[in-house]
Amino acid sequence: MNNRGKIINDPVYGFLRFPEAELMYIIDHPWFQRLRNIRQMGMAHLVYPGATHTRLHHSLGACHLMGKALDELRLKGIDHSREACVAARLAVLLHDIGHGPFSHALEYCLADGVTHETLSSLIMQRINKDTDGLLNNAISIFDHQYPDRYLHQLVSSQLDVDRMDYLNRDSFYTGVSEGVIGYDRILQMLTVRNNELMVEEKAVHSVEKFIIARRLMYWQVYLHKAVLGAEQLLINILKRARELAYAGENLFATPALRHFLYSRLSKKDFEEQADHLDIFCQLDDTDVLAGIKVWKSHKDLVLSCLCSMMMDRHLYKTQLSSAPLDDMLADIRKKLSLQLGLSDHELSYFAFTGTTSTSTYNTEDERITIAMKNGSQCDISQIDHALVNQALARPVHKNYICFIQPET
Amino acid sequence: MNNRGKIINDPVYGFLRFPEAELMYIIDHPWFQRLRNIRQMGMAHLVYPGATHTRLHHSLGACHLMGKALDELRLKGIDHSREACVAARLAVLLHDIGHGPFSHALEYCLADGVTHETLSSLIMQRINKDTDGLLNNAISIFDHQYPDRYLHQLVSSQLDVDRMDYLNRDSFYTGVSEGVIGYDRILQMLTVRNNELMVEEKAVHSVEKFIIARRLMYWQVYLHKAVLGAEQLLINILKRARELAYAGENLFATPALRHFLYSRLSKKDFEEQADHLDIFCQLDDTDVLAGIKVWKSHKDLVLSCLCSMMMDRHLYKTQLSSAPLDDMLADIRKKLSLQLGLSDHELSYFAFTGTTSTSTYNTEDERITIAMKNGSQCDISQIDHALVNQALARPVHKNYICFIQPET
Amino acid sequence: MNNRGKIINDPVYGFLRFPEAELMYIIDHPWFQRLRNIRQMGMAHLVYPGATHTRLHHSLGACHLMGKALDELRLKGIDHSREACVAARLAVLLHDIGHGPFSHALEYCLADGVTHETLSSLIMQRINKDTDGLLNNAISIFDHQYPDRYLHQLVSSQLDVDRMDYLNRDSFYTGVSEGVIGYDRILQMLTVRNNELMVEEKAVHSVEKFIIARRLMYWQVYLHKAVLGAEQLLINILKRARELAYAGENLFATPALRHFLYSRLSKKDFEEQADHLDIFCQLDDTDVLAGIKVWKSHKDLVLSCLCSMMMDRHLYKTQLSSAPLDDMLADIRKKLSLQLGLSDHELSYFAFTGTTSTSTYNTEDERITIAMKNGSQCDISQIDHALVNQALARPVHKNYICFIQPET
Amino acid sequence: MNNRGKIINDPVYGFLRFPEAELMYIIDHPWFQRLRNIRQMGMAHLVYPGATHTRLHHSLGACHLMGKALDELRLKGIDHSREACVAARLAVLLHDIGHGPFSHALEYCLADGVTHETLSSLIMQRINKDTDGLLNNAISIFDHQYPDRYLHQLVSSQLDVDRMDYLNRDSFYTGVSEGVIGYDRILQMLTVRNNELMVEEKAVHSVEKFIIARRLMYWQVYLHKAVLGAEQLLINILKRARELAYAGENLFATPALRHFLYSRLSKKDFEEQADHLDIFCQLDDTDVLAGIKVWKSHKDLVLSCLCSMMMDRHLYKTQLSSAPLDDMLADIRKKLSLQLGLSDHELSYFAFTGTTSTSTYNTEDERITIAMKNGSQCDISQIDHALVNQALARPVHKNYICFIQPET
Repeated sequence: MNNRGKIINDPVYGFLRFPEAELMYIIDHPWFQRLRNIRQMGMAHLVYPGATHTRLHHSLGACHLMGKALDELRLKGIDHSREACVAARLAVLLHDIGHGPFSHALEYCLADGVTHETLSSLIMQRINKDTDGLLNNAISIFDHQYPDRYLHQLVSSQLDVDRMDYLNRDSFYTGVSEGVIGYDRILQMLTVRNNELMVEEKAVHSVEKFIIARRLMYWQVYLHKAVLGAEQLLINILKRARELAYAGENLFATPALRHFLYSRLSKKDFEEQADHLDIFCQLDDTDVLAGIKVWKSHKDLVLSCLCSMMMDRHLYKTQLSSAPLDDMLADIRKKLSLQLGLSDHELSYFAFTGTTSTSTYNTEDERITIAMKNGSQCDISQIDHALVNQALARPVHKNYICFIQPET
Repeated sequence: MNNRGKIINDPVYGFLRFPEAELMYIIDHPWFQRLRNIRQMGMAHLVYPGATHTRLHHSLGACHLMGKALDELRLKGIDHSREACVAARLAVLLHDIGHGPFSHALEYCLADGVTHETLSSLIMQRINKDTDGLLNNAISIFDHQYPDRYLHQLVSSQLDVDRMDYLNRDSFYTGVSEGVIGYDRILQMLTVRNNELMVEEKAVHSVEKFIIARRLMYWQVYLHKAVLGAEQLLINILKRARELAYAGENLFATPALRHFLYSRLSKKDFEEQADHLDIFCQLDDTDVLAGIKVWKSHKDLVLSCLCSMMMDRHLYKTQLSSAPLDDMLADIRKKLSLQLGLSDHELSYFAFTGTTSTSTYNTEDERITIAMKNGSQCDISQIDHALVNQALARPVHKNYICFIQPET
Repeated sequence: MNNRGKIINDPVYGFLRFPEAELMYIIDHPWFQRLRNIRQMGMAHLVYPGATHTRLHHSLGACHLMGKALDELRLKGIDHSREACVAARLAVLLHDIGHGPFSHALEYCLADGVTHETLSSLIMQRINKDTDGLLNNAISIFDHQYPDRYLHQLVSSQLDVDRMDYLNRDSFYTGVSEGVIGYDRILQMLTVRNNELMVEEKAVHSVEKFIIARRLMYWQVYLHKAVLGAEQLLINILKRARELAYAGENLFATPALRHFLYSRLSKKDFEEQADHLDIFCQLDDTDVLAGIKVWKSHKDLVLSCLCSMMMDRHLYKTQLSSAPLDDMLADIRKKLSLQLGLSDHELSYFAFTGTTSTSTYNTEDERITIAMKNGSQCDISQIDHALVNQALARPVHKNYICFIQPET
Repeated sequence: MNNRGKIINDPVYGFLRFPEAELMYIIDHPWFQRLRNIRQMGMAHLVYPGATHTRLHHSLGACHLMGKALDELRLKGIDHSREACVAARLAVLLHDIGHGPFSHALEYCLADGVTHETLSSLIMQRINKDTDGLLNNAISIFDHQYPDRYLHQLVSSQLDVDRMDYLNRDSFYTGVSEGVIGYDRILQMLTVRNNELMVEEKAVHSVEKFIIARRLMYWQVYLHKAVLGAEQLLINILKRARELAYAGENLFATPALRHFLYSRLSKKDFEEQADHLDIFCQLDDTDVLAGIKVWKSHKDLVLSCLCSMMMDRHLYKTQLSSAPLDDMLADIRKKLSLQLGLSDHELSYFAFTGTTSTSTYNTEDERITIAMKNGSQCDISQIDHALVNQALARPVHKNYICFIQPET
């Protein structure tokens, strides 16, 4: 065997290499392979049919970028041990291991209020225990305890390899070319001062473009009104199914889905009883989709109607607005109530409002620091003629309304 | 509403447009939407993680290419009515509607010996009946009855829009860039003489490259040994599940999968009893995957072992060879038999041989005709200094062996 | 002959088509063919070796985009006659016909203070006269006299096809991928209200990205310090050559270059004496480069030294700064003066300062108007959460210094 | 200074790096910089307007690929010293240094019968002498004397980095996408056995596609009839100019061009008198183009007419044919003679025939060897089901005719 390791074709970057045995152990782990059946972009493929890529692919890609980033830093004299490099690559590879079916779309729905970060952390600890410490350093980087602080920033900050990969990959697979970022230039311009990750001054405009690309992807793709509506539909299906489950109704479900449908598990439950995590790691998109397909024929009309809407792609009509939408909602509900004879509670599945928000540059988060040629450093929002200013830093809130069209 | 129609982002071609109401009717049909959950390349994503694209996406893409081809022909004075154009686009849009779970991989497994073309045809007839003849012309093109014979050739021949799209799309999503074809140039060089589709002489080298790209995709992707092994694994899982089903074993399955698992349906059954088709049109990859995931824990060791191999990606070891592999098989079976204590029948799930074949240019099929500048025409294998010669026309047969590695 | 017209391969857009006889007349005109030997990006290829593309290629590309823009508008019901379409395409095709050697870099140097727009206008008038009015409408569009005002805006505004093409093309040929713009989406989102060109509200983020891409191309490419230095070097060579010419020195030059080197022509001269324009239209990069190559051996040390610097790519050392650079200049001049024994005037060729500026969004120029869904319209800087705000609208001025390094 | 070295943007490969001081010395050499003004594809830009890239860019790109190839081999355990790596990179960087104006198109025209390889060799020897042996190893690799024989094969064989770069780059700049090759995969599959360069068996289809891509580029681009005609026009212009020069006519020319126009230099002359080489290294496309532009107004009608045809792009009408074209030529010459009253000798500039040829896989050249999995090796034409067979190995000869259209 040569030391080129496993090579994987990736349409985004060409070829990905995983020569490290530690990484191959994780890639071959059933819990990692599970990510093959979790779509990276939830329901976005209903609008962008090319967006069928998976969490597994994203995780491999982000891990690849971590390797490239560390190579670049090494060329600049910012060296690190093989151990640190493997740990950083492992941390990225596993950063999304805790995602459940449909990634963000169903987060909190099956395991109540338990974030995917919490689950990732629990899974990493479990694997670490099973392997007598394979992930010690990776976990330490993840938890911001590792001495080389910039490794954490590469894993998680406003300019981390996670974002670089998902913007690139999501652009590639949706065909929204405006989201493509010049990741290779940004990687080349990374540097480290005082143990902090920074970007060289001459890359300021590339970073600006990165931030604007992300802004565009949010409004054009991630918060696209039809995508938002489809994900609300998915959430409502699960909500209704649980209502029925709690009411004693017998629903078709794989055993793993049944486990979460018929119970209410908190973070504490996961920590105290190991088998919840084992069962969670059997779940993927398939379990939910198989349920929805069968529930199309369920006798509960709300459930069967929502499931048919999903499978036949008759999505909610959705609108986004800066103004409040309460009057519009009241009006639609009144019409629907007359036409369909549904209770108020039932109506809430067919017409409802909500709020969504995003910020282009979040000053609360791990920020982007520019290493100036003159030796000083500053936040990207503080450079001369900054594009990333106060206005961009404030989050944008939008109201949305989803409903089925009343007959006229 | 303007007359730009529905526009869909496609990373392969940029934007796809569907201004025709007839096409939108089909695209919105639940049976077409079903193709969203059928992966275009079966199990190839286990080797090429990017290859998660769907039959729906391919069908939209091929339909787009049909529009482009007809536009080009129109510019050359080969005109056709709007009706003919819509019919040709519909025929392509529906050409794969009869595919079941995992496309080719499971063909014949669930509906015994019924090809996907037969099922496509049955489905088109059904929709045609339901719509009072919406598909009359499309079916006529499909069945080679339509007066403009070249429309059929665009739908199905060795240079049809189906192949153009799948080569392009599969290359794009696998990252195997050598499969990319210069489809726009080929489209521009299409012409029609005597009602036959031809390629202008000056495109001979582009067509050669198209044929070689296809050859490469076969050996590098479609018949990649690990892909081949994964698809044999899938077939074996279904075969074992059916054995158990026929033996009266109760298996977890969605109702639609159960219908096909517990029966043996022939083409005649589909023709005589309409509901078989209805139920077939509820099936997609999800049903099979959900089954496999649950069967991992089934008490039949053969079934559970095969399902674990699939879900955890512990695939068969596979080899391709021009030479016979019988001795190798006998040897492996002997070792496995000693180690695992399996019956001969059980062993056949864990070590077996088979044959696969492909031809680079099939002289039996609808051939590629070159329209020479001097007014004559000839088969592409007959031009001066032809690349596509006798040797390439002969199909290549290869033996394969799949097995689990005996311990040493 | 079919009506597909001339088809030209373009790596940026695939294929360009010119079915209109009027356009082919211009493309075949020697004055248009002249643009083949004028590099689009002046001296940028010294920094970005791929940037060798020509004004001819850019003009063809912009003309292609104009065709696409008009097609899109037609699909939205904003129709226009064939005549208007041809006129708009002609106007774009000819918009840069007045550029001289090295495009912007030498503007004003050979024909004193005469802009390329003035020369384009004179050339269009001449061709129009020669062809009995072929360009009547094109000139009318150019001069903002044509009734369909939006056609002028497509030719010249902050979102015109000229900018779309040059950003795309310059990004493509330099390899600065961050400059790539999603031109197809922007074209699709163009619309016309009250005879004014606008962009649909949902394209706001694509337009923002377009503006940011332009900002990035300015600072990273067009005003790259080495590019700026190389263009100053070129200007200085011509300036010195003219000094010598006016002093009666005999310089090697093609007849066309000699004509401009040994005279001082104003706009008035061009208008009054037709042959100046004829001779101008014989000039391209070749004339200047051939001169420089021969002048490397000229006995005037200033000239020969500057020419050697250019041909051997020993460029000025250049710095950009927001702060004034006068002290630095004085210091360098002092050192150089001691080392080289040059006069103050001669020194000014080897160490000098200047100012450059650009604005990301110029509120003085033809602005970008957004057509809101609610029927209103507003400037892109006035929408909710606008990225393009006051700060971006203010031009950024930078000082630069170019010098040869004194020995230490 | 960090050890990342000089980084150059390349639209084809992304970023090129030259950390080695030896390489930077060559890149900065005026004789290498000269390649900036020599178009890689001669006159092809008259047909493919994007094809304006230069020999300098190609040389940098091929040198980049050499670095990648050696990196891949190192990963497989085929190691080599830094010295060998630098030498191989230098050899590739300089392999085209002996090209004169318009590369192949004018080869033999200015320096009679002296190939560009001979000139490259002379130039390398000169630089080697000037630098006290900087190029010792590079020359040794070039001359096939270096102990690591595979390095020579990477520089010059049927699968060398020169071909890989020019196919890729010429495809990129012409927009003929069918010429694109999967160079990264081929590089990954290179290996060395017994000091010979080989390709791993599993890359057979990629290599086939590489060979077919080259075949296509030859017939579609390099030997495109209009390109061929334009290059014959260029040759005829130089031929006529020399005729006049030898007859004592005074022609406008840069001193360097004059040197070659008014003399007949053989290889021996170059070897015996050093200044011929110095003057040759002042020549580039500019000298020839400047001449042609001025000669448009020369009083010799043959010369001025040919030069006008070139500058105004009124090219010869050209046809390629397998059959002889003598009758056609005789017929055209008769008509032209009557219409134009030219002598037979003069007529030979306006109507003439010739032969061109190319082979898809040349069995006389350095061949492509496949390293079989079973340990054996064989020529690519000898593998099972070989695409590259006897027929492809035979060169294809084509007759061509170029003429100006007689009036009818």
